[in-house]
Amino acid sequence: MSSSIDLSHHLNEVSRSQIPSPLKQIFKYMEIPGMISLASGLPNPSVFPFESLAVKAFAPDANLDPGEMNASGSSGSIAFSLSKYPFENEPNTLSTALQYGTGSGSATLTSFLRDFTARVMKPGYTDWAVLLNCGNTDAWSKVVGLLCEKDDYILIEEHTFASAQRLWAPICNGVPVAVDGEGLIPQKLNEVLERWDVEHPGVKRPHLLYTVPVGQNPTGATMGLERKKQIYEICVKYDVIICEDDPYYFLQMPSYVLPSQRHQQNGRAAGYSEQEFLDFLVPTFVNVDYQGRVIRLETFSKTLGPGNRLGYFVCNPVFEERLLRSTEVTTQSAGGWSQAIIEQLIVSQWGQGGLLRWMKGLGEYYTIRRDWMCDFLSEEFDMESSPGATELIATAKGSGCKTPYFTFTPAKAGMFLWIKLYLGNTALFKTLQIAGEQDAEERWAEKFWASLIEEKVLLVPGSYYVPIIGSNDERMKSENGVTFFRLTFAYESKEEMQLGIQRMARVFAKYWSE
Amino acid sequence: MSSSIDLSHHLNEVSRSQIPSPLKQIFKYMEIPGMISLASGLPNPSVFPFESLAVKAFAPDANLDPGEMNASGSSGSIAFSLSKYPFENEPNTLSTALQYGTGSGSATLTSFLRDFTARVMKPGYTDWAVLLNCGNTDAWSKVVGLLCEKDDYILIEEHTFASAQRLWAPICNGVPVAVDGEGLIPQKLNEVLERWDVEHPGVKRPHLLYTVPVGQNPTGATMGLERKKQIYEICVKYDVIICEDDPYYFLQMPSYVLPSQRHQQNGRAAGYSEQEFLDFLVPTFVNVDYQGRVIRLETFSKTLGPGNRLGYFVCNPVFEERLLRSTEVTTQSAGGWSQAIIEQLIVSQWGQGGLLRWMKGLGEYYTIRRDWMCDFLSEEFDMESSPGATELIATAKGSGCKTPYFTFTPAKAGMFLWIKLYLGNTALFKTLQIAGEQDAEERWAEKFWASLIEEKVLLVPGSYYVPIIGSNDERMKSENGVTFFRLTFAYESKEEMQLGIQRMARVFAKYWSE
Repeated sequence: MSSSIDLSHHLNEVSRSQIPSPLKQIFKYMEIPGMISLASGLPNPSVFPFESLAVKAFAPDANLDPGEMNASGSSGSIAFSLSKYPFENEPNTLSTALQYGTGSGSATLTSFLRDFTARVMKPGYTDWAVLLNCGNTDAWSKVVGLLCEKDDYILIEEHTFASAQRLWAPICNGVPVAVDGEGLIPQKLNEVLERWDVEHPGVKRPHLLYTVPVGQNPTGATMGLERKKQIYEICVKYDVIICEDDPYYFLQMPSYVLPSQRHQQNGRAAGYSEQEFLDFLVPTFVNVDYQGRVIRLETFSKTLGPGNRLGYFVCNPVFEERLLRSTEVTTQSAGGWSQAIIEQLIVSQWGQGGLLRWMKGLGEYYTIRRDWMCDFLSEEFDMESSPGATELIATAKGSGCKTPYFTFTPAKAGMFLWIKLYLGNTALFKTLQIAGEQDAEERWAEKFWASLIEEKVLLVPGSYYVPIIGSNDERMKSENGVTFFRLTFAYESKEEMQLGIQRMARVFAKYWSE
Repeated sequence: MSSSIDLSHHLNEVSRSQIPSPLKQIFKYMEIPGMISLASGLPNPSVFPFESLAVKAFAPDANLDPGEMNASGSSGSIAFSLSKYPFENEPNTLSTALQYGTGSGSATLTSFLRDFTARVMKPGYTDWAVLLNCGNTDAWSKVVGLLCEKDDYILIEEHTFASAQRLWAPICNGVPVAVDGEGLIPQKLNEVLERWDVEHPGVKRPHLLYTVPVGQNPTGATMGLERKKQIYEICVKYDVIICEDDPYYFLQMPSYVLPSQRHQQNGRAAGYSEQEFLDFLVPTFVNVDYQGRVIRLETFSKTLGPGNRLGYFVCNPVFEERLLRSTEVTTQSAGGWSQAIIEQLIVSQWGQGGLLRWMKGLGEYYTIRRDWMCDFLSEEFDMESSPGATELIATAKGSGCKTPYFTFTPAKAGMFLWIKLYLGNTALFKTLQIAGEQDAEERWAEKFWASLIEEKVLLVPGSYYVPIIGSNDERMKSENGVTFFRLTFAYESKEEMQLGIQRMARVFAKYWSE
């Protein structure tokens, strides 16, 4: 294994110009024994009004029962507390958590996450670094701030995470790359880059790929190792940096099996080990990365709660140092409460094994929920596998008619199902086409969505995830005769989820019978 | 009182182009009774591992004794807890705090801060708005992101807060404006703007003033109401937006009185009311503002602890809406723990009166500390008031020699003393001048600083606060024959502070006797 190559030519002008605040070097002198500091502008922690904090939390092997909205954690709770006193030479007290820190945040937490990354992600080069941030939205804004110049083109999935797009849309242009049930299609990525200079003469080739490779938002697609390797090699060839936004990594699941084909217990065997859990997880881009061209965005949002606003970069040391510079002048650090509480929970209480055990429990929890939703869909629609593919085809229930309503690939990670609706046989679509509607698919989807809301079931329209490809919010054209919706299986109770799918089925029946 | 005028022409190109994430509109539909949401990507709170949180905090009238490193809060502690269950229709539970929220954060906390602002700041126009952020460093980066284009010029104090400068330095240029013991000098500001077109033909006139008007960092200067009004009118005349970074607002103090002139009890009378405390505070720029051209940055960093990373904007509604757009795609919101804990503390426990009472206690606490440091200085140096001014002149102790070592204006707010050293009579400075040093003041300061560190007392060199006035980190020239250091009275114990000043005095004696 070798160290990262020099990729500093990717840094944008602003990032290259950032200089550490001179105040930071004051900290170094404060550590000299006997030094009296009349220097740094730290408020006195004795007048922070918080004296102590006590937290009750789940044990890592807590009973996460999706049948209960209030998971009981009955197999074990833990408790810990943090105090303000004494506040000198005690790294984990509230006085430290509530004080100014360095932009890099808690050294203890960072060190733990470095060990965790080494064990779980196994980066493919030697000198990778870990840096805390305020969650993946913050992290992505810092990556764009690190690498992108005005009018740059960014490579994105053809159905792309809406909020991430909102960040760069005022500055850059999107270059959508086609996806299938396994995410980005390597050949399509290669074509875009290969033809770039011919199709965009004089325009700088995209040098940043944004991807959610596991349980993609919105498509739910998960990229296998082989595909990641192919995409990585294309990025090596065309000198592209990969931003791996991977919030659903630990919410990976075994493949869904239709009830009719379910001959044995679904899912992973009970009682499998942490090692078996690790072996089951698809390797990350950071693992495939032998040059340091992947910036991995890891977050606790989907595993310990979004309100923590805590995540971390895994990337090459040059990028890490520049990201630290921008952290110092923007967010300063993640919140002190989050850092202290999560450090206590995962470093002092759970440990590496405990954190993995927790992740394993979460994966099982969301697997059960994914299966509920897919099962409810198979109750309300006739469902078939397409030959040689992972895709399922949904048709009218019990009618024998094989005209597809929609198709989808059951997610193997994350929280979402992404259904592709075939509008050609609906009366509404024909009417819209005859009326010469500019974007009949989009008009159809608007009406369908309104009908769903009337029936009191809320999905997300696929239009929210359409790539922006130019200035003035210019969007990619819709695919002919199809439209998409995103369904979440993460949130509602089993009963509500079933009711929601039943309501949705009624709207389908109405639109396809008219 | 009228509403804000249209200042939208100040928005930069990126800010004007920001569009809300379409996902945000999903929240609206989720609130329809009976709606089953299979839409939003919220992880299920039942698997957030935190069950409950209990906090012990000071009562607002806690005994904040600067003589104790561990303030006892003996006159009253309070306790509160937050639970995860039930998590539906309970706004203050952990399930809400740890979930995704809107970019505007807690509505309860925002509403409380709006009332607090109305009462304490009394904005001078009707339609001002409040928006939470992650503290003033984050806030300032969002203001620059809102208003500044590449190569803009920003008006700043001639000794300017180093970290704030680090943010804009890669993008913009600083235009330093001279200050005195009361901060920015209105005539100097007027001159800069009046002469701009002549001195910078073809260059866009600065349209943003960054100022720390109370307890300025590093000078400690506090701007009176009259001066604020004069500066405001100049900004009206030249269409300049004022960014009022005001972290030390509640750490205001009565004037320092030398022990030799101290005929009666120093400071405010004990037992004065919250109203008297309010009347004592100098009005803010937001109070003076009748057009909506002030963006006030308020933070809890100096009052409840920097680690909370929580603050708020007070500004016109157009800027507030644009700041919310950028919040949604960067930080998303302040940390959930901070929001929930501070909301519980100040909204549910302390209330408006309690928060004011706390601020009053803090002001008294830092007043005692400011007096300690000034008293220790007057023990180690002969000290005189300059005629008709608030400035004090420090000379050699007991020698009768009136050659000044340094001068300073005792802070009337905040945490800092800013001393101006007169180098002309030191042997080192003469040597450096004879040697033809380019920047003899800076070389002198470096050596002096090294000597202080050798003596184990740490100050901050004034060079850290020198404005950057052009690309490649070009800095403003030093003033002839003087240099500056910043001292903090916020942190060290009384004994250490005294020892620190004694050590400093020894270094002074050495440099001026050689």
